[in-house]
Amino acid sequence: MGRAKEPSPQRSITAGSDFLHLDIADAPPGGRADWLSAQLRQAIASGRLPVGGRLPATRVLAADLGVSRGVVTEAYQRLVEDGQVAGCGRAGTVVVAAPAAPPPMRRPPATATAPAALFPQAPGSDVFDAVRAVPARIDLTPGLPDLAAFPRADWLRAERAVLGRLAPADFGYGDPCGAPALRHAVAGWLARSRGIAVDPTEVVVVAGVSQALGLLAQVLRADGITRIGVEDPGSLGVRQHLNNWGVDTPPVPVDGAGVRVDALAAAGLPAVLLTPAHQFPTGVVLDGERRRRLVAWARDGGLVIEDDYDAEHRYDRPPVPALRGMLPDRICYAGSVSKLLAPALRVGWLLVPQRYRAAVVAAKRNADLGNAVLPQLVLAELMISGALERQLRLLRRRHVRRRDAMIAALARHLPRATVHGAAAGLHLMVTLDADVADTELAAATLARGVKTQPLSWHCQRPYRPGLVLGYAANPASDIEQGIATVADALSGLRRTRGS
Amino acid sequence: MGRAKEPSPQRSITAGSDFLHLDIADAPPGGRADWLSAQLRQAIASGRLPVGGRLPATRVLAADLGVSRGVVTEAYQRLVEDGQVAGCGRAGTVVVAAPAAPPPMRRPPATATAPAALFPQAPGSDVFDAVRAVPARIDLTPGLPDLAAFPRADWLRAERAVLGRLAPADFGYGDPCGAPALRHAVAGWLARSRGIAVDPTEVVVVAGVSQALGLLAQVLRADGITRIGVEDPGSLGVRQHLNNWGVDTPPVPVDGAGVRVDALAAAGLPAVLLTPAHQFPTGVVLDGERRRRLVAWARDGGLVIEDDYDAEHRYDRPPVPALRGMLPDRICYAGSVSKLLAPALRVGWLLVPQRYRAAVVAAKRNADLGNAVLPQLVLAELMISGALERQLRLLRRRHVRRRDAMIAALARHLPRATVHGAAAGLHLMVTLDADVADTELAAATLARGVKTQPLSWHCQRPYRPGLVLGYAANPASDIEQGIATVADALSGLRRTRGS
Repeated sequence: MGRAKEPSPQRSITAGSDFLHLDIADAPPGGRADWLSAQLRQAIASGRLPVGGRLPATRVLAADLGVSRGVVTEAYQRLVEDGQVAGCGRAGTVVVAAPAAPPPMRRPPATATAPAALFPQAPGSDVFDAVRAVPARIDLTPGLPDLAAFPRADWLRAERAVLGRLAPADFGYGDPCGAPALRHAVAGWLARSRGIAVDPTEVVVVAGVSQALGLLAQVLRADGITRIGVEDPGSLGVRQHLNNWGVDTPPVPVDGAGVRVDALAAAGLPAVLLTPAHQFPTGVVLDGERRRRLVAWARDGGLVIEDDYDAEHRYDRPPVPALRGMLPDRICYAGSVSKLLAPALRVGWLLVPQRYRAAVVAAKRNADLGNAVLPQLVLAELMISGALERQLRLLRRRHVRRRDAMIAALARHLPRATVHGAAAGLHLMVTLDADVADTELAAATLARGVKTQPLSWHCQRPYRPGLVLGYAANPASDIEQGIATVADALSGLRRTRGS
Repeated sequence: MGRAKEPSPQRSITAGSDFLHLDIADAPPGGRADWLSAQLRQAIASGRLPVGGRLPATRVLAADLGVSRGVVTEAYQRLVEDGQVAGCGRAGTVVVAAPAAPPPMRRPPATATAPAALFPQAPGSDVFDAVRAVPARIDLTPGLPDLAAFPRADWLRAERAVLGRLAPADFGYGDPCGAPALRHAVAGWLARSRGIAVDPTEVVVVAGVSQALGLLAQVLRADGITRIGVEDPGSLGVRQHLNNWGVDTPPVPVDGAGVRVDALAAAGLPAVLLTPAHQFPTGVVLDGERRRRLVAWARDGGLVIEDDYDAEHRYDRPPVPALRGMLPDRICYAGSVSKLLAPALRVGWLLVPQRYRAAVVAAKRNADLGNAVLPQLVLAELMISGALERQLRLLRRRHVRRRDAMIAALARHLPRATVHGAAAGLHLMVTLDADVADTELAAATLARGVKTQPLSWHCQRPYRPGLVLGYAANPASDIEQGIATVADALSGLRRTRGS
């Protein structure tokens, strides 16, 4: 057997250390402890060895460098005498001080942005990140469930169970469509909660609805669909996202019964993106007549993308089954746990008609080779054990109290405002009879320490000024204070204009 | 305050149940328990309520439906009598049997593929998924560390610590660049282990090297770079991935000193993707002279993408610092925990020159709004506590024994083969002096129950036939058996040809 330029396999030693890339050949003979302590001091001063960092065990580093353990012990001892490191018993030797502080994490530029600049009339793609990065006393932006209710103990218990039974191969590269256990659990969840009968093999696990829409945009563009109608008013973030993937998003008007299917048909659009169960931001439910017309439009060749973003959160009305169940061949469906558990989990699901399945799987493979496996299995465990359904019941009870608190606060502080969409969801839409730009109102409110979203961001065509106000993530006292602050900001703007 | 078409907020009742979308209005008066038990039986028969699924507590379902608890108790009792559900004490009422078995998960089509069809000479993008889906006695495909060594207890301990201290807001939408704690920890890890000095704000957390390359491909294309040279031999998967993102990948030859920088310069390519620390699949380390020439080429305007995929795994040689440290302005750098912990985690990092930073962050936001937060924080904890470094030492000791076992088995069973790249990594490259197509050899070996990868997959221009053989994920006995099987398959092919 020939071997190409390799050292003998018997010499399985490590000739040097990964730790700081130390090479003992650089040390002068007889001065190895000096040399080593100097290297360590340098690394601490430059921040390569940060405060809190741990030095390798003396035995380990000595073996790596090919020196006696005494050399390493002596070098460590000198740094102990300097006060730069300390022995911490079984925790080893830890860096406790540095001659110069390591460079602090630079704050993102957005934190320095003035409130007015954060609420432009034509916001860019990073606007949500920029607003999120600004500290505020109270955050009434929409889109979050009560994050304090995240079931930490359930999650940890499920993770322990999953880690206890996983086969080693499960830690390898997985199926880009998702872990079979989660695809099964999602199919069951959709059947029980959303009235969708779906085979688990049709479920593609994705990193949230946002990724689902990006994958669909790529697949539909390749199929010649470059325009997807969107509801107006409708989510700015979703519109920006589709635009970034090269898809145009002409507006289709929404009225009190949901999207105007006549306008959709008249526009000659090949596809439309909808939030039928709880329209964002208006909160309107697509009514029965419109559902029938929409299904007829789809049967005639239209494609519907159903964003079922917060359908589980409803308070005063019977559940509305998903459209997907009515016409699986013409309706793509996306949902996630962002509003059920937490956006930070980045787990959602996508169902598409059979003809798009292979292309969607290829797009998911290209995106990231598939979602991380552990969180998928933990989530499957929570779905199957009933913990997720318990969580939803808990959230609903809590959210409805907060919704009521916000409605009461609006009646007190903004009695002339009109409230929309209170029967479900995590937010209210409020329209104002005032003659102010809602971007200015949002900026003035933020200047007083309260974050909101201007309604005009979510409107492509002129609409009444207003705000979109999330209530789910805030206790009632913050909601009361936050709405009082909005009212105060509005009075301030009116005074400035002498109106 | 006007209100738009909403029921009064005081009526905060749930008018119907999410559970199976039951609506009590459908039930005949006086026959509610009958009706409810019929609905449940139907749901069990159709698989919407699967075996193992749990029924809501009687109190809860009664409240949702607006019926007395007795109605629900009676309906459940009938299903208990049918033998379809059972009371499980505190675990509630669970479905234990169904009249017809729910549809089983269809197996992916690949499992039915014959070995020869799995190893075409021009494989498609789904070839790795297809090979992975085939069951085999022994899997010697490359690219996996020892997955049995995944530090489950450390991971769970770190997750408990993280869940114990997270603020509710941390469960919201995060920074698309990644959690600050992980960006800090990665910067420290790269400084200590890879000789890279980098500010944490420069680190973008991604879903593995594969996503990193996809993001880069999008950003570079927008910058006018549509061709990226790749090493030849070089990773098929990486090449396919860049092609899928619309980037051409002309071959640049690799010899015993690494990539041929003269050929790269002569080809007039704007950018090159390299694995300098341990070339895939040859295992060659880019030598000092070539590093200098490559840096000179980059200074003259070339862009280098450094895929540092398994640099931490080395056995017989001193550590090779990353190229990135030498010329941060011309070198993009990607790494991950796929070879340190597990590919299933889908966590990696990407460093790019300043001029590409904003575009890469925008691409990551478009891809998925950022990685999931919990696993990032758990990983940061493992990096900072020293657990990841302990894991690496453990893996190295184990991998070197397996590497030695594979070399010994090759000497025994394939004495005329040449072994390459044994000083580092998780795999060996073996070239054969035989006149056989290595795709046929891989197919014949799989027909005998052992998975390998044909070398020709990783070659754009003609090269010697060979195999790429992973040793890290297999115990020595499997390695011995696997190599004996390769030899047996090779003899079989030679006999068939009468050679």
